[in-house]
Amino acid sequence: MTRTAVIAGVGPGLGESLARKFVAEGCRVGLFARSADYLEDLADDLGDDAVAVPTDITDPEQVEAGFRAVRDAFGPVDVLVNHASGGSWQGLREITPEEFERAWRVSAAGALLCSQAAVDDMLAGDGGTIVFTGATSAVRGREGAIGFSAAKFAVRGMAESMARELGPEGIHVAHVVIDGGIRPPDVDESDRDAAAYLDPDAIADSYWHLVTQDRSSWTLELDLRPHVEEF
Amino acid sequence: MTRTAVIAGVGPGLGESLARKFVAEGCRVGLFARSADYLEDLADDLGDDAVAVPTDITDPEQVEAGFRAVRDAFGPVDVLVNHASGGSWQGLREITPEEFERAWRVSAAGALLCSQAAVDDMLAGDGGTIVFTGATSAVRGREGAIGFSAAKFAVRGMAESMARELGPEGIHVAHVVIDGGIRPPDVDESDRDAAAYLDPDAIADSYWHLVTQDRSSWTLELDLRPHVEEF
Amino acid sequence: MTRTAVIAGVGPGLGESLARKFVAEGCRVGLFARSADYLEDLADDLGDDAVAVPTDITDPEQVEAGFRAVRDAFGPVDVLVNHASGGSWQGLREITPEEFERAWRVSAAGALLCSQAAVDDMLAGDGGTIVFTGATSAVRGREGAIGFSAAKFAVRGMAESMARELGPEGIHVAHVVIDGGIRPPDVDESDRDAAAYLDPDAIADSYWHLVTQDRSSWTLELDLRPHVEEF
Amino acid sequence: MTRTAVIAGVGPGLGESLARKFVAEGCRVGLFARSADYLEDLADDLGDDAVAVPTDITDPEQVEAGFRAVRDAFGPVDVLVNHASGGSWQGLREITPEEFERAWRVSAAGALLCSQAAVDDMLAGDGGTIVFTGATSAVRGREGAIGFSAAKFAVRGMAESMARELGPEGIHVAHVVIDGGIRPPDVDESDRDAAAYLDPDAIADSYWHLVTQDRSSWTLELDLRPHVEEF
Repeated sequence: MTRTAVIAGVGPGLGESLARKFVAEGCRVGLFARSADYLEDLADDLGDDAVAVPTDITDPEQVEAGFRAVRDAFGPVDVLVNHASGGSWQGLREITPEEFERAWRVSAAGALLCSQAAVDDMLAGDGGTIVFTGATSAVRGREGAIGFSAAKFAVRGMAESMARELGPEGIHVAHVVIDGGIRPPDVDESDRDAAAYLDPDAIADSYWHLVTQDRSSWTLELDLRPHVEEF
Repeated sequence: MTRTAVIAGVGPGLGESLARKFVAEGCRVGLFARSADYLEDLADDLGDDAVAVPTDITDPEQVEAGFRAVRDAFGPVDVLVNHASGGSWQGLREITPEEFERAWRVSAAGALLCSQAAVDDMLAGDGGTIVFTGATSAVRGREGAIGFSAAKFAVRGMAESMARELGPEGIHVAHVVIDGGIRPPDVDESDRDAAAYLDPDAIADSYWHLVTQDRSSWTLELDLRPHVEEF
Repeated sequence: MTRTAVIAGVGPGLGESLARKFVAEGCRVGLFARSADYLEDLADDLGDDAVAVPTDITDPEQVEAGFRAVRDAFGPVDVLVNHASGGSWQGLREITPEEFERAWRVSAAGALLCSQAAVDDMLAGDGGTIVFTGATSAVRGREGAIGFSAAKFAVRGMAESMARELGPEGIHVAHVVIDGGIRPPDVDESDRDAAAYLDPDAIADSYWHLVTQDRSSWTLELDLRPHVEEF
Repeated sequence: MTRTAVIAGVGPGLGESLARKFVAEGCRVGLFARSADYLEDLADDLGDDAVAVPTDITDPEQVEAGFRAVRDAFGPVDVLVNHASGGSWQGLREITPEEFERAWRVSAAGALLCSQAAVDDMLAGDGGTIVFTGATSAVRGREGAIGFSAAKFAVRGMAESMARELGPEGIHVAHVVIDGGIRPPDVDESDRDAAAYLDPDAIADSYWHLVTQDRSSWTLELDLRPHVEEF
């Protein structure tokens, strides 16, 4: 089975690892992000199974055009990863209403637009998979990060609501709680401190497991953290 | 101790019961809602300890003016109840981006504006209490209510973030999960079906308990439901 | 309304504060603990509304006899606080099977015996209230405290199961998550470090609030922590 | 890498599917259960990579002997699945203290004994994996199943405590929440009603994913349910 996937919010790190993993498993992948240059380089590197689609996911028209571009290249979408995230590290006393809104718009409103576009394809086909990238702040509101906490909680609420609505229709909705820092590209796997980070390629293995789960045994939520993480 | 309270989002039902309870316990109360007529009638009924402040809590300038009006009438604010809530009963496939945004704007963005205004008073004084009205959909994303679920989750994330930021500053932040329907004004307490509802006066007792808790033993979250509710 | 309460697991600290609060609110109280001397002193101090009932709550016959003694003194039981707790601070690699069992027997098995005895009275009368004293380790398994974590989780599972079974019968079951250290008797309220502790008298206020909640708006769970607690 | 696994609590259904999956992935497997006849038949069917070890996991000496038998056959243990479970469907008013204890003894105390035995091998080697089979009643106390709820909650508390203690030592502890009925052997995959069940082979795929996760990105908990399950 050849799947078409959209990764909304690709960047160096986990988004890129997801793209590589999905292509390695035989998917064709549409890459969404605002930065055209980065996307083009990544798509070139991934070859014929990837297409760069510069998209501001907070803009309904751009999202629609982005999905059209992926369908034109690879056919209907089977897999969506809502991976974009925003939010500054500010508490109630520092954050502006605009920053609070921005965190919600990128994480939650953008995911709504992408999910609505993808679900049409999935319902017309054989179902599909939608994975949301969450964080510890989706299950435990973080001091000094009110915008990020509110946005990540909102996304988790969306994912649960969608899982209940769409599961019986054959669409698997899952939410991944990433608890810890993802290893930055400039930290080598063999570095002494590398153990403190989640390896983005290892995270991608668990996303792929979610995509391949049999519909008799779907996971709504799993958490991921380094073995040395205190939690 | 005479407290000044703001109830943001007053209407017949729980908002009104909160206002009556707070006045009965000696508070002076500022009533925020968009409907001036309803507010005036309620304020008249409550007497000198209540002031009607027609306010659209999603508008920063109106929120600022609203708090100014309460301070002018009763002095700095000690208690805030973030009680406004929005959201239609629609799933991913029916909701428009505008409806999704509206739910968030009323529940989460409005609560941010009110909390920022209130916290200034509380930090300058002896601390205070901020209570958020939550729902089951704040802890369990509801099928067919994606906008409401995302908004109520967001509010819970805000409340937790604020509790951790503001607790050490002497501000008690709490989140109440109301699990079930609140008795509508037209259902009499003696009706056969009344047992299926939460009595808004009884809910108000628990809000008041939160306000009076000693700072050595503060509650972040409590749930409330009728004794016959299945859950 | 004069209530008869049993506090199972009384000792200096919260158990004693609960007894004092309940008597002050007009209850008659049966005090259960293994130490007869301590109980006698406390009962003397509390006066005619308290009776000392030396009881090992892990022994079915002693529990039965204990409830009989309370009924003989004060009539059927309306309120039960399952407050006994056991468990050493040991991880998987240090704990013996006997210590693991002991923690469960005191916290969970003892609470089963007391609850079964009390529920008979409550069902024959006008309902009642059963409150379980929980801890952070009831919601978050603690490193190095496997016996305590397993026992406290078990108690929380019991409380939820009982709340669903007994709520519709008019019995309010609640679980209190105490997150932090309770102020020891030898730390004065005015001590500099006292703010780091929960004041047992303040905790007792919240237990009493649970007892007095209207059945239209019952709480299953609330948490309590000092305002300075990191969590 | 050839792993040695112990599955504690094997029976037709998930236990057997786990054994087949693990052998198919190259593991050697020790099968623990009380029924010698069933175990022998299964071990014969699985071939040289499986050994039947009739064991009552609530008996410390039998557990010790069981692990010795597995080590003798296949070397030190790398993987343990704590899969045994007990508990009748009875509420507070029907259950006997003996039945309540039995549920705890099989699920929690037995898992302690097996985990202690396995951890010694894992710490002496390159780490390992311990997976607990949980249920919805581990996260939501079930009406009319107080013994099962208390036992399943206890197991979840143990798993969390162990994950925090043992993760930094290189031992991955995970807890799987199975939400729904597992397809019984007599219901064919093609039956109309089969969609209502979890396929035990599909569950086994997720257990195996947990075993193979990179230590930079370990999952503590995941849930599994049929796509048509209401939850």
